[in-house]
Amino acid sequence: MKALVLLGCPETPSQTPMAVYVFNKLTKMGYDVTIAANPAAKKLVSISDPEGYYKLNLVDLERTLGEINEKDYDLLGGFVHKDAAASCFVTFDQILNTKSLALVFSRDMDEVEEFVNMIEESGSNAKIQAVRAFHNPSPIKVKFDKAIKEFE
Amino acid sequence: MKALVLLGCPETPSQTPMAVYVFNKLTKMGYDVTIAANPAAKKLVSISDPEGYYKLNLVDLERTLGEINEKDYDLLGGFVHKDAAASCFVTFDQILNTKSLALVFSRDMDEVEEFVNMIEESGSNAKIQAVRAFHNPSPIKVKFDKAIKEFE
Repeated sequence: MKALVLLGCPETPSQTPMAVYVFNKLTKMGYDVTIAANPAAKKLVSISDPEGYYKLNLVDLERTLGEINEKDYDLLGGFVHKDAAASCFVTFDQILNTKSLALVFSRDMDEVEEFVNMIEESGSNAKIQAVRAFHNPSPIKVKFDKAIKEFE
Repeated sequence: MKALVLLGCPETPSQTPMAVYVFNKLTKMGYDVTIAANPAAKKLVSISDPEGYYKLNLVDLERTLGEINEKDYDLLGGFVHKDAAASCFVTFDQILNTKSLALVFSRDMDEVEEFVNMIEESGSNAKIQAVRAFHNPSPIKVKFDKAIKEFE
């Protein structure tokens, strides 16, 4: 089983810790996990694991977008906390046409709703977990743990 | 040898990855390292290492401030990217009266200068490494690596 996890731009402090958490959780569930991110987001994740204990598999987001085909992955996960991240998730979701999960969060509840609408209006069948969160990662972690249980 | 590392509030996305990096580096240098942070900053660091590989030793910042005495630590390190973090660093620095290193960073160069001035005007003998950085952690990492070499 293969999973692809998309990171958004790195402004939000919760994304990097949650990326390691999600990578580790999916790996323990038996997934071969790839994290796709832009250069700054990749660096943040790499520095989080200086000894390489988690064997994080990080790839460039744009290059990945140019290479993927339908059903290349069994699961798509995405951190959605910006317009650009919502568009990116929708694009990958449409190409891969696989089981997918969007973790939508923002410090602003209106933005949360906006991003959820963007995904829904694309016709995506993604499971959407949405929550108001910024520098406390716990609400995102709780939502992810709950959603991923249903995929087990 | 004991080292205390202070985290500021968790808004900046570089702080959590750099906290793990600094903890790991100082541990490898032989320090018994403690990270002091507020509850949200602590949670972010914990979630970064879900398997506990790094054996991160996290304590509450305010409680630590109430308990420490001069020379309790051989090295004080601090992430300074807010007014509050600069004041906090200065306070710990004055109480501990030990070797100290401030990592000052902000996306705004004026703020960087302001925080450096706050530390210098306190009469601190801290080594100050200051750099413009926000979501790319590399400049902070480079500055830290360079400064810590002088402490080896």
